Amino acid sequence: MSEILESYVAGTWTKGAGTGREVLDAVTGEPVTRVSSEGIDMGEVVRHAREVGGPALRALTFPERAAALKAAAGAVQERKDELYALSARAGATARDSGVDIDGGAGTAFVYSSLGRKGLPDGKVVVEDDFIQLGKEGVFGGRHVLTTPHGVALQINAFNFPVWGMMEKLAPALLAGVPTIVKPATPTAYIAVAAARIMLETGALPEGSLQVVAGSIPGLLDQLGGQDHIGFTGSADTAATLRGHEAVTRRSAHFNAEADSLNASVLGPDAAPGEPEFDLFVKGLVTEMTTKAGQKCTAIRRALVPQDRMDDVAQAVEAKLAGIGIGAPGADGVRMGALVGTEQRDDVRAAAARIAAAGTVVHGDLEKVEVIGADADKGAFMSPYLVRVDDADRGEPHSVEAFGPVSTLMPYRDADHAVDLLARGEGSLAGSVVSNDRDFVTGVVAGAAPYHGRILVLDRESAPESTGHGIPMPQLVHGGPGRAGGGQEEGGLRAVHAHLQRTAVQGSPAVLDSLG
Amino acid sequence: MSEILESYVAGTWTKGAGTGREVLDAVTGEPVTRVSSEGIDMGEVVRHAREVGGPALRALTFPERAAALKAAAGAVQERKDELYALSARAGATARDSGVDIDGGAGTAFVYSSLGRKGLPDGKVVVEDDFIQLGKEGVFGGRHVLTTPHGVALQINAFNFPVWGMMEKLAPALLAGVPTIVKPATPTAYIAVAAARIMLETGALPEGSLQVVAGSIPGLLDQLGGQDHIGFTGSADTAATLRGHEAVTRRSAHFNAEADSLNASVLGPDAAPGEPEFDLFVKGLVTEMTTKAGQKCTAIRRALVPQDRMDDVAQAVEAKLAGIGIGAPGADGVRMGALVGTEQRDDVRAAAARIAAAGTVVHGDLEKVEVIGADADKGAFMSPYLVRVDDADRGEPHSVEAFGPVSTLMPYRDADHAVDLLARGEGSLAGSVVSNDRDFVTGVVAGAAPYHGRILVLDRESAPESTGHGIPMPQLVHGGPGRAGGGQEEGGLRAVHAHLQRTAVQGSPAVLDSLG
Repeated sequence: MSEILESYVAGTWTKGAGTGREVLDAVTGEPVTRVSSEGIDMGEVVRHAREVGGPALRALTFPERAAALKAAAGAVQERKDELYALSARAGATARDSGVDIDGGAGTAFVYSSLGRKGLPDGKVVVEDDFIQLGKEGVFGGRHVLTTPHGVALQINAFNFPVWGMMEKLAPALLAGVPTIVKPATPTAYIAVAAARIMLETGALPEGSLQVVAGSIPGLLDQLGGQDHIGFTGSADTAATLRGHEAVTRRSAHFNAEADSLNASVLGPDAAPGEPEFDLFVKGLVTEMTTKAGQKCTAIRRALVPQDRMDDVAQAVEAKLAGIGIGAPGADGVRMGALVGTEQRDDVRAAAARIAAAGTVVHGDLEKVEVIGADADKGAFMSPYLVRVDDADRGEPHSVEAFGPVSTLMPYRDADHAVDLLARGEGSLAGSVVSNDRDFVTGVVAGAAPYHGRILVLDRESAPESTGHGIPMPQLVHGGPGRAGGGQEEGGLRAVHAHLQRTAVQGSPAVLDSLG
Repeated sequence: MSEILESYVAGTWTKGAGTGREVLDAVTGEPVTRVSSEGIDMGEVVRHAREVGGPALRALTFPERAAALKAAAGAVQERKDELYALSARAGATARDSGVDIDGGAGTAFVYSSLGRKGLPDGKVVVEDDFIQLGKEGVFGGRHVLTTPHGVALQINAFNFPVWGMMEKLAPALLAGVPTIVKPATPTAYIAVAAARIMLETGALPEGSLQVVAGSIPGLLDQLGGQDHIGFTGSADTAATLRGHEAVTRRSAHFNAEADSLNASVLGPDAAPGEPEFDLFVKGLVTEMTTKAGQKCTAIRRALVPQDRMDDVAQAVEAKLAGIGIGAPGADGVRMGALVGTEQRDDVRAAAARIAAAGTVVHGDLEKVEVIGADADKGAFMSPYLVRVDDADRGEPHSVEAFGPVSTLMPYRDADHAVDLLARGEGSLAGSVVSNDRDFVTGVVAGAAPYHGRILVLDRESAPESTGHGIPMPQLVHGGPGRAGGGQEEGGLRAVHAHLQRTAVQGSPAVLDSLG
């Protein structure tokens, strides 16, 4: 039997009891590890964060926390080969691993830098100058941001075990709030390995980072108004967590990043032969195949002018046909496996529901040709592009197939495109690929209330564009409605979100002494 | 039978069916009105806001919305006598009415001014300059704030029918989000009258303000990710609302301002004879008696150095003994009635629980001398000050008696004071009355994570201080934990909170065109 994955709690590496839940290699189907938190005292985990991690972090200034974060990120970057090797077992190609591992370290580096440059050399942020509240100027107010005496519980998704952990850890650490990571079970072994690398630096004060592999029964019962819960995952789980009394009654802060039916819009100007046409096709293929489409931000809905449906379908189909699928690292492989066969089966079922609303342009839900692996043992599936000519059908706007699946749909004009974008009921990421400034402006203005991020891609920005699916630490990540209504990253906004804002009133002399 | 109070929904004044719930005069016990929303179609209310109010508001620029708000506030100010007369029936003295009515209009004026000066002459807020995301500078990001296509449901408390409505309406209106007000039943007739005054100006676009007097069954079922729910009231109701699927599943924005056991701390320097001693005593008496203590921000816990307990008790008792209680407007009356006898009975019961932990300094729960009214018919009670020498007792830190009730407790040193402040588990407002800068700095730094606002009162700021209990529109109002974890006002922060933040990525030229 494979080994139980260790958790790091209350200062020691410890194994949960029992047989745990077995995690299989996404490529070979062989056992990788078992995950169990049985016997771990969640009360002690929270207490350790509150009583050891919190005071230790609050004793550091912002620049000192930024330095600790930099050291931790540096170790991940330096030892990334170890993580790449593990990541491959979850089905990730080297490119996929780069998004997760280098992306995670890079995000933490950016945060370290933002913290060093943008936060004061102290422990309190003073937000504004003296706000005069009387005629003579002897009384006024200022807002200060201080570190709550709480913990940050970070519940992450399986798809980005490193990046997901780092993008939540970084702002919490800068804010001085100790972190408890609960990685998703299927890739917990990668998150735990990355946490171990960070902990081994000794740069993180004891108690500032704990990792619980497995379930966390009763942990939320310990949380309240000084605490922060950051969640990435399904809308169902988000609703359950947000409905917990820790949130509803005790006002723990809650941030969710959940389902999202992200869309990309091809501009009416972008005829075949125009650079934007190629950018759109390339972007769609990239989003469908990176991480085998297991990205919260991946393009699920491709909206094109109605008279371009055939052109786009053909161009995308041609590219998808050339994508080798199989074992990460094997010659010719450009797309790896999904994280597991259970996940693959879910994706197939969802894709079938969407396909019932249209026709299949590319892919087969029943079979897939695989390089360097056994298609029956690994969690492989082919990219799957559906064409739905009746864009009013509900399925493409409501069914999220969390894999290499996308739907091509026609729109009539800018207003129609905006209306279709809004039918996602709130998305993490949208994009407009067009060189028509009026079209772009109209779509961005109309779609912004439904999006956390919108990429405008054209020939000018393309050389440096980071693409539709990549959240940047400088910009907010999260979306309204279905996407969870939360907001992560966004530069120092994420640090501020972990702090308590307090209006302080008094004389100018008193308010001067706050910084 | 008294008349059913009209609601303004879907463009018309309409009366709910049935007999409704009777509301009595707080002073005389005579019927004032009856409240019923029976037969009002909540779906139509939301639809009207979404389809009529939303588009009309979104068609206006920020300055145009600010002008509409100013006109509405101006009418309230101009016709305030009508509102004062109604307010007196709810037990409010002229001073109390001023806090609510002039306070409400003033808050809206401040918002109008902030909006005119601080928001662009357009419909979109661009938050930051070009954030470069590549070496050559052809790709970057900016954040924009746009108006969601939703509604703002505002559920208000009984104690400030006008101010509570205006402080929520003002930022929503500026943001371009149509408002549905659900006033608290006991003082709905005052809120409805104020809304009528604003609507009669014709300045507010149709659909931008609706008022439903009575319950709102099924209304939350209509809300989701584009909508905003602002709540002021009990922690129980806050928990129920926050646990609704509109919030947990569909990510409607939710802001609560709930219970709060606010504390004021007398500094160790403030011996009898020092100005701060008098300021503390005066502040405590004001907070206990204004609105008969029915203020979310009122001082419930008075913390004084242990060797000053007797001095403070005597000084406060002397002042309370001189407070005339009775019919608003009657000679010698400085404190009016509670909003109703049911509320008074709740307060008496809570006060008795606190009194069981200590001794009574002033007041009698069973009897009260009343001027110009019948003590048996009106909802009167005397100010009630309890002394609890064992500050570790739980009651004063957990039981909120929402009336003219406060508890005097001793602290040993600054750390102990901070610890006691934190036992409120999150408060709206705290204050430190001291001229000892070190003490003040230590208490503010220690208590800030548990407070939304902290007033530092001393001889310098006193001449212009607005006092412990008064939220200012320029500063945030709301507190962590028990206080609901929300944040209202805070200048333009409240407007921004009603807008959707979207990161837009693209070339500098594209991002320049966003404003």
